[in-house]
Amino acid sequence: MADELPVITLKAIGVVRNEIKQKPPAGYEWEKVVSEIVVDSSLTEALDGLDEFSHIIVLYWMHRATSGKVPLKIHPRRRQELPLVGLFATRSPNRPNPIGKATVRLLQRQTNILKVEGLDAIDGTPVIDIKPYIPGYDSAANTAVPQWITSQ
Amino acid sequence: MADELPVITLKAIGVVRNEIKQKPPAGYEWEKVVSEIVVDSSLTEALDGLDEFSHIIVLYWMHRATSGKVPLKIHPRRRQELPLVGLFATRSPNRPNPIGKATVRLLQRQTNILKVEGLDAIDGTPVIDIKPYIPGYDSAANTAVPQWITSQ
Repeated sequence: MADELPVITLKAIGVVRNEIKQKPPAGYEWEKVVSEIVVDSSLTEALDGLDEFSHIIVLYWMHRATSGKVPLKIHPRRRQELPLVGLFATRSPNRPNPIGKATVRLLQRQTNILKVEGLDAIDGTPVIDIKPYIPGYDSAANTAVPQWITSQ
Repeated sequence: MADELPVITLKAIGVVRNEIKQKPPAGYEWEKVVSEIVVDSSLTEALDGLDEFSHIIVLYWMHRATSGKVPLKIHPRRRQELPLVGLFATRSPNRPNPIGKATVRLLQRQTNILKVEGLDAIDGTPVIDIKPYIPGYDSAANTAVPQWITSQ
């Protein structure tokens, strides 16, 4: 089947700028980190109206992560006491396609620059898409998660 | 700046199978559509534990959409009475990188096949990542959206 699966090429639309220059330890609290997303200036007009949304979804390329062939089962957050689970059951950055997805608060838009809060991406991370966050479509009700997710 | 932005190559990890063979009209109600995501069998083990989550996030490549050079401002859902807004303020599939992001209910996992409900992707769509949906991280509180989002 692998042979049927297409190879896809994309081009970054912008880059993350913030104070986090190196990958922080697992479990780092990104909630209050303020970042700028500098969007390619040829795409400035495509941001019009985005600031009517309080939150946006950012898809980014975790360029420092391991891609392609990666371990299929891992201990989440590199914590040995957590169960060994499949990679796709975790948010580990080391995945076949290391795409990150964050829901962040949009603080401000100035021309081609978006100031956001809570983006868990280091300085220099390529951004590949930006979407408005739509409650109900992007959120789920009556959710269940395994116990390890909430373990401190 | 465009020259600094990297070109990124990724490989699909699976494919969507469902009854929707052609792109349906804008506004189609996908909520009850049941799909199978057939994951590359070499990645089967990476799905272990995913079925402890009620919902998953699917990133997919909208292979029938227009990519690269696209109109920067559009009327959402192709409805002329809605305001002309920037592309990134919409969920239009025609984007520089036509990546779709859906939050769906996971009904069942059988080896390398995930049965899901509500995935708004047509039959044959390449899947590029699968993540567990984590309430609080993937959802946002105190959200605001423009009026056109909720207009029928």
